Parts: sequence; C-alpha cells; structure tokens
Amino acid sequence: MSDSKAAEKWKVMAPWKDRKTIVFMSDFGTNDGAVSAMRGVASSVSGELKLENLTHEIPQFNIWEASYRLIQTITYWPAGTVFVCVIDPGVGSERESVAVLTKSGHIIVTPDNGTLSHVQKEIGILERRRISETENRLKDSQRSYTFYGRDVYAYTGARLAAGLVDFQDVGPLLDPRPVMLRVDSPIIRGNDIEGTIEILDTRYGSLWTNIPDTLFFSQGMNYGDDIRVLISCDKRIVYGYTMKACRNFSEVALGQPLLYINSLLKVSIALNQGSFAEAYSIGTGEHWHIRISKEIRQKD
Amino acid sequence: MSDSKAAEKWKVMAPWKDRKTIVFMSDFGTNDGAVSAMRGVASSVSGELKLENLTHEIPQFNIWEASYRLIQTITYWPAGTVFVCVIDPGVGSERESVAVLTKSGHIIVTPDNGTLSHVQKEIGILERRRISETENRLKDSQRSYTFYGRDVYAYTGARLAAGLVDFQDVGPLLDPRPVMLRVDSPIIRGNDIEGTIEILDTRYGSLWTNIPDTLFFSQGMNYGDDIRVLISCDKRIVYGYTMKACRNFSEVALGQPLLYINSLLKVSIALNQGSFAEAYSIGTGEHWHIRISKEIRQKD
Amino acid sequence: MSDSKAAEKWKVMAPWKDRKTIVFMSDFGTNDGAVSAMRGVASSVSGELKLENLTHEIPQFNIWEASYRLIQTITYWPAGTVFVCVIDPGVGSERESVAVLTKSGHIIVTPDNGTLSHVQKEIGILERRRISETENRLKDSQRSYTFYGRDVYAYTGARLAAGLVDFQDVGPLLDPRPVMLRVDSPIIRGNDIEGTIEILDTRYGSLWTNIPDTLFFSQGMNYGDDIRVLISCDKRIVYGYTMKACRNFSEVALGQPLLYINSLLKVSIALNQGSFAEAYSIGTGEHWHIRISKEIRQKD
Repeated sequence: MSDSKAAEKWKVMAPWKDRKTIVFMSDFGTNDGAVSAMRGVASSVSGELKLENLTHEIPQFNIWEASYRLIQTITYWPAGTVFVCVIDPGVGSERESVAVLTKSGHIIVTPDNGTLSHVQKEIGILERRRISETENRLKDSQRSYTFYGRDVYAYTGARLAAGLVDFQDVGPLLDPRPVMLRVDSPIIRGNDIEGTIEILDTRYGSLWTNIPDTLFFSQGMNYGDDIRVLISCDKRIVYGYTMKACRNFSEVALGQPLLYINSLLKVSIALNQGSFAEAYSIGTGEHWHIRISKEIRQKD
Repeated sequence: MSDSKAAEKWKVMAPWKDRKTIVFMSDFGTNDGAVSAMRGVASSVSGELKLENLTHEIPQFNIWEASYRLIQTITYWPAGTVFVCVIDPGVGSERESVAVLTKSGHIIVTPDNGTLSHVQKEIGILERRRISETENRLKDSQRSYTFYGRDVYAYTGARLAAGLVDFQDVGPLLDPRPVMLRVDSPIIRGNDIEGTIEILDTRYGSLWTNIPDTLFFSQGMNYGDDIRVLISCDKRIVYGYTMKACRNFSEVALGQPLLYINSLLKVSIALNQGSFAEAYSIGTGEHWHIRISKEIRQKD
Repeated sequence: MSDSKAAEKWKVMAPWKDRKTIVFMSDFGTNDGAVSAMRGVASSVSGELKLENLTHEIPQFNIWEASYRLIQTITYWPAGTVFVCVIDPGVGSERESVAVLTKSGHIIVTPDNGTLSHVQKEIGILERRRISETENRLKDSQRSYTFYGRDVYAYTGARLAAGLVDFQDVGPLLDPRPVMLRVDSPIIRGNDIEGTIEILDTRYGSLWTNIPDTLFFSQGMNYGDDIRVLISCDKRIVYGYTMKACRNFSEVALGQPLLYINSLLKVSIALNQGSFAEAYSIGTGEHWHIRISKEIRQKD
C-alpha cells in the first residue's frame, strides 16, 4: 500500500477517537506543576480522555533520548494512541510545531527538532502537518511564549484524541520527512558486526546497541557462544573481552559480563546485577562503537 | 455577584459530580506506598473517579511551595476538579482539616496551614468548611493518627467527587479566610518595580518573581528592551546586570541571561539552557528581592 | 469458611472484572520507557482498564521491600484490584511466574521469589497458579527473554482485569504457599516486647517495627507513657533512650524522639521533623532488633 493510501486508511478509521488516550513525555521532571498543568488542559478539553505518561525524566534538552524513548514504547500502545512529546530547547523559536501520523497508526504531537528520528527510521511517518497555532492554541494563552507544551501541544493532542479536530485539519501538509538526527545502522565487517551504543538502560547500567538480533543470528552467532566484544570511543579501545551470549542474566554468576538480546530485540551488554556502563565508564552516542565476533578458538 | 451568591451557584451546579476528578499533591515522594494507599482509598469510594497527581515531590513540610504549586496549576483544570493537598507537618495537632470552594469552582481538601495562601490571594475562596471527622473518615481508621491524607483527606475528596456527600454537608461553615502565609505584592518605586523571587522553576533553575506582565508593560518596559536587574537578599546585593527582555529563550546565546514572561505571566530571569539560581546562588522567599528598571543609556 | 470455599466464592464473584483496575509495582524507575511499555500492553488488551502505580522506585532487586510495599497498600484498594509486581532479579531463570488470589479478594501477578511473603503472613493466599506462558504471553514476544514484566505479567494482569481470561484458566494450580522470605513475629520477654525494624518510612526516616499496636497496649503501655527503647544490630546496642508514646508528632518539640503508632498500626520511632534513621545510622531487616518497655521509675 502506498503511503498516501495508508494515510487515507488511518484517517478514515481515526482510531484515536476510540482510544481517547494521550501519552505525555517531557524533560520537565515531576517536582513542580508543569506536567499537571498540561494534563489539566487535556482534561479541560474532554473529561473522557485517558491521560498517560511515557516519562518526564528525559535529561534536559536531550532530543536523542526522547527520540529513543518514543521508539522504545510506541508500538506497545495500540494504534490510535496520541503521543505528546515536549522536549523543546528552542521553545518559541523557528522550529516547526507538528503533528505526524505514523505507519503504525499513532499520532505524535511535538516540536520537530529531531525527536521523530527513530520513529521515522524504524516505523516511518506517513503525514507531517504544521500545527496552525491560531486555531490550535489554548484560549487566552497568546501572551505566553514559553510553555508550548501546555498551550499548544497538550491542547492539540487532546483535541485530536477527543475527536474535536480531525488530523487533516490540524494544519497544512508538509513534506513527511521530519528533522533527523544522525541514526547509524550497524555494519558487517567480515565475520564481525560493528554497531553503536545507542543508549543506556539507565536503571541497570546495561548498554543497548543498534544491532538487531536477526543480524546477530544471521552472522552465525547464537546463544551459548563466546562472543568477543570490543568497545571503542572514537578510535580509542576502552573495553575488550570475551563473554557468553545468554538468554537470561542468570546464566552467568553475579557481577559477570554477558551479551544478551534486550527487550527491543537488540544486542546488549550487561553485568549480572551490576552496572556495565559505570564499571567501565562507557557512554552512548555516535562516538561509541561496539564490534562483536564469535570467539573461534577452541576452549581448553 | 456576591461571594455567597457565587457559592450558591457552584453548589447547585456541583460540577465535581460530573468531573469525578481528584488531583493529589503531597510531600510523600513516590518511593513507598503512601500515595498508592491514598489513591486506593479513593478508588474504593468509587470506581468511576479519575485519579491525577499534581506532584508528590513538594520538599518536606514546605507549605509555601505547596501553596505555589496549587496556584500554578489549579486554573488549568476544569471547574469542579477536586484537589487533595497533603503537606501536613502538624498532622494530628490542632490545625483544622478543611474543604474550601474557590471562586473558580474548584474544591480543595487540605489541612489549613497556609497551603491556601496563593489561591486566596489570586483567585479567592468563597466558602471554607471544617471537615467533620466523625462522618468523613475512612471506616475503621480511628486508631490511626498519623495519616490523615489517606484516612480523611483522600476519603473526603473522593466522596465529594463521587457525589456521595455534598459540599455543604462536609462540616460546619468557617470564616472563608484561610490561614495565610505572607505573600508580598510588587511595589512601584519611581520607574522601577520591586518584587520578590517567589519560587524556582526547579528543573531549569530560572527565577520566578511576583511581578505580573501587565505591571511590567504598564511601567513602559517591553520585549527587546535592555532591563537593569538587581537581586538582593535582605539588603545585600547579590546580582546586578543588564539583560534583554525576550519572548523566547532562543533570542540570546546559550548561557546568556535574559528576562522573560513565564507561563504564569510573571517576570522571570533565566540563563538560556543554564541554571541562573545555581550560577549566582540565588534563593527564594520573602528575603529575596528583585528590582527591575529600563536601561535608558543609549547603546553605543 | 475453608480456603477452598473462600476461593470458590471469589472466583464466582470475580470482582476484578468489575473493577478493571491494575496497580503496577517495579524496580524500573520512571526515567525510561519500561513502565510505559507495560502500561501500553495493558491498554492494548483493553481500553477500559484503569492503570495505577504503587511505586516503581523499589531499590533494585529488593524483594523484601517489594513484599512490604504490597502489604502496606493492598487492603486500601478494593477487592478485585489486580496487582502486577515486577521485581525480578532472576528474570528468565527457573523461578515460577504466578498469579495468586488472596483471602482479601485481590489478585497478584508476580515472579514467585519472595514478594508474596508479607501478604501470605498477614492476609493469606487462597490459590496460587503457575502462569502458562504459551497462552499468557504478548503476541510475537517469544524472542524476548528479559522483560517478563511487559510480555507476561502486564499482559496476564490486563487479561484478568479485562475478563478475557478467568483466574482458574491462567495455569495449573500449585501449592498455595508461595516462596517465603523470613518474616519475624515480635516476642514478649517479661514486660518487654522485642521486635524487628522491618522498614524505613523512607521520606521521613522513621523506623517501622513489626510490633502491632494491640500487642503494645496489651502489655500495659499506653499513649503518654515514657517508653524505654533499645535498638541493637545483632548483639550490639546502637541506641538506648526513653521517649514518650505519642498519638501525634506534635506532642514533642522539633527534633525530639517519640514512639508512635504508624499508619499500618505498628509501633514506630521517629524524630519530629527529623530523620531518626539517619541521626543514629539505623538500618532495617532481620539483624535490627528493637526492645521496648514501660519506664517504671517515678519521674522526679
């Protein structure tokens, strides 16, 4: 099905009007009233909406992490769920305020500053529309320039989910491709796979790479194998060691390293009940590379 | 309309019975079960209630901040929303447990210890009632003296929102004026305005003053102007500098100071993507004054 | 009524189908997308479910605290509420995934690793069933081995609460007794009571013991009495002092110690607006004992 036909299909179905669910994400934290003000605006639009949170603990202005958290969760919510994403370091500047429709039938309302990168790469965006702020703005909020999350994004997301505005009426159609951060794909080098460390599993300190399980298995690696893992920052090697590929953390002793497939089906590295990232001072992003290969020496 | 007529109007409309929404605030944090116990009590009263949070991260016993967070959010929720506010350093002592009806048609259930100060000053309270704890107390909770949030406030808020008790039947009428903290108003001094730093935007470190945008503009200051900003703690000057009045943070370079109008339409001071409060060790409260005036020297 | 008759009664009533409420607990924190992914799975099962949190800030892998937080809150939620509890250090290993029905009519879905200890001891479990993961697993999640919270527990809890699977069809019946941590009962020694410090009231630093108020009063102690309090870690005494038994914190001066009955009706020790645990470096668990007795010397 062509993208435009798919978009048409979703717009006719308009599953958001049935779901009536908004999932909020921001870098506001939850110590003050900002998140509650956004939710209050949504509740004022319609008392029937179900209001959810993704997280409000995105590190300040960290668009990369916001983009990742969207792809980590969006497909676990049913089609029609509306995401309102407010990581907005350029609030009030010339970045576009957009609402997009994904191939999976989700709507995301966000400043278009890179937060849509992973969704575009891994799911795909069918339609991108500029939010017309004359109509899609909380009544009497025109004097406020610094809280688009409340005045524009929460308000527009709520009106979409409540069926008070149709997606096609949010504003003019733009080119579907959003502002993109650089998101690398893994590379096959002989028998090795080279990828990047995309993000930390913050609570547990595991490293999540961009290498999908399918690539791992197709290169002849498997559970139970010893895998050689090389981690480098730019050209500097910061870790090199062999560890077992495991289904579960409990296959190695406490504190031991392992390679596993994470909940997003990507190759990941951890210490069983420890923090790999902290133990070896490992960071994330385009400068952090990982290279994995099957250890072929016979074990003695 | 007189206050008593306005109160009568709200009590006849009783919008809380339609909204069925409770917004909880406390200083409990979310690490243990206290918040969930309160919400469970509300859910036991009626399965139809919508349970929301303002924040549970009010610093321990900080009544001032609780009062501010109420005024920051309450009007973004529709009339009829019931707020249950539990910052209660004197739990079980002689402070009154009250339910109040605001001019905006909201109900707030709280120990009356100052948390209503900003709401009283900026919105106004129509009726204040002492909660009769004989009827308005969770069944079989009489042996518990330390968790009024769960046993009295959540329970009473839930019964109000569920329409199981009318506002006028919560308990005897008191004088409408609640216990008040000192909340200063800004003062005009010649061409200058002197105000207080009421609170920090905790996540970003900006200073929020009590100077409304209307006063700022009426004193001849405007966006684009250079504004002289003097900050003092008691009589000691801790900061003096000229900065631009901006609509958006992005009008100055990263790390540069700016004056802006915040989301509550009050004059505020920030560093673009930095923390002003941390950079200059600035605090909040009645001892922290700010004086602003238009810089009239010609720029060269 | 026998346990099997009680179980039958609850299964016929099936109050979870009316409540449609799930309360989630985990050690995931809320900084990433894990909690939202679980809630999304539940929302995908049915758009009618009410999704609640107990807490997601259980210290990593701390099964004891998870067990305590369940008993702290469960009875404040109405019968029929479904708890989904994901503290799972042995994820994917041989621990059982179970759903249990309590005497109070609640359902708990959890890895059976000790999290049910307090509920078993203080409420009692009527039926314990192993979750059959062939049927009770999120569609297409078979390649994921590390996020049972999302793929099995949230999914199964949601299907139970939505009435899409009956409790008796979740999987085969097991012995009702779950995996148990050691949970001590208080002991009477002459006129003294000896108990353990079970947990901290984390936010305020108070010590919560396992001594119920009924035992306290039945040993002749009462509000207003001076109580001798001895705290020891193993055999080493770390605190010995006399303090007043109070209904409310405000009966002693700021910073003064007091004995009170906490919101779960257990004897507790605190400093008024201070942290007792921090002031005296007191910990919790089976090694931390407390001995209380009425001070019988005449006050002079």
